Amino acid sequence: MKRIVMLASGRGSNFLAVASAITRGMIHGRCVGLIVDRRGTLAAVRAEECGIPVFLVDYPGFSGKSEYEEELTRTLGSLAPDLIVLAGYMKILGSAIIRDYAGRIINIHPSLLPSFPGLDAQGQALEYGVKISGCTVHFVDEGTDSGPVILQRAVPVLDDDDPKSLAERILHEEHIALPAAVSLFCEDRLRILGRTVIRLDSDFQEGRSGST
Amino acid sequence: MKRIVMLASGRGSNFLAVASAITRGMIHGRCVGLIVDRRGTLAAVRAEECGIPVFLVDYPGFSGKSEYEEELTRTLGSLAPDLIVLAGYMKILGSAIIRDYAGRIINIHPSLLPSFPGLDAQGQALEYGVKISGCTVHFVDEGTDSGPVILQRAVPVLDDDDPKSLAERILHEEHIALPAAVSLFCEDRLRILGRTVIRLDSDFQEGRSGST
Repeated sequence: MKRIVMLASGRGSNFLAVASAITRGMIHGRCVGLIVDRRGTLAAVRAEECGIPVFLVDYPGFSGKSEYEEELTRTLGSLAPDLIVLAGYMKILGSAIIRDYAGRIINIHPSLLPSFPGLDAQGQALEYGVKISGCTVHFVDEGTDSGPVILQRAVPVLDDDDPKSLAERILHEEHIALPAAVSLFCEDRLRILGRTVIRLDSDFQEGRSGST
Repeated sequence: MKRIVMLASGRGSNFLAVASAITRGMIHGRCVGLIVDRRGTLAAVRAEECGIPVFLVDYPGFSGKSEYEEELTRTLGSLAPDLIVLAGYMKILGSAIIRDYAGRIINIHPSLLPSFPGLDAQGQALEYGVKISGCTVHFVDEGTDSGPVILQRAVPVLDDDDPKSLAERILHEEHIALPAAVSLFCEDRLRILGRTVIRLDSDFQEGRSGST
């Protein structure tokens, strides 16, 4: 069972989607902690309801980014994660953490990357005028939303969409995509070749593990 | 009935998709000419089979880009198009033509723009490692594949795709998307607002034309 640590900043609906998939036995892992970066997040409330330990690494309480990162590093280290899931975590992780956990940090982003990286992806999509958008689960590298893509799901953009209605349509797909990606990771079915992520099929895994 | 002029450089499968939709009465327009930029294109053969006049503006036969553009301008002018469709036309149109026919030139591109503009979009998509790609029909502006998007269609990218297999899967969607966009244009159902293209519904048109 993989040890999963999630990071969230907001209402935590993606955190909850993964936690729910774990509860339903769809992910071969367990969530050993949720780290939040500020007080009073709905994500923290939901984690406590699920019996998942919550760790506050309170960004405003630190004198600077480096002190915050050090405490985050300590907290992560104490949890010994096999996988770190950024589930609506609104800060950029420091380079040291990204290097320490290379290939073991995944993020979800509300666009079909490489279109519309960074903040307000849904607003960017409407501004550009695309007719299809979606979400991307990817491994985190040191760029902004630039790491190897694990999976993507598409949604239509409608003529009368505003950022909120588009965000809701994409969020529905995020709640499918993120647990699916976490599940694949926890079954050791993802391989990064160059910057392409290959998905090994279940039969391959069964063959490897010797079961028939 | 709108006067449609198409430009092609290659085998002309997108040209044929539009010509076929016209023949089947699905587009309120007629193709008054195909312009090709070199001799011996399969597109030209197919146009002749359809009884569509073919105009050769033979790029290698001109001493420079500006002479070629002048002849292309004359040829277009003689055809008096309401709509110019770039159906696998591999050259960049000159600024003067783009300005003369602003809002009346459409192009099809084998990616979900703004991802992967320019040449070898399918190769770019595989290199990046996206899991969803597709095609985009857009109005042409003076940038590279940067104009307002009319419609897009998505396809999955498979782990064992090469540029050819991905191109074929996308091409299947191009053959649906391009005639659909041409049809919408010919029914006056497209409006460009800023850089967003809004699609008017048929009822709106019926209301305008006074039918019941």
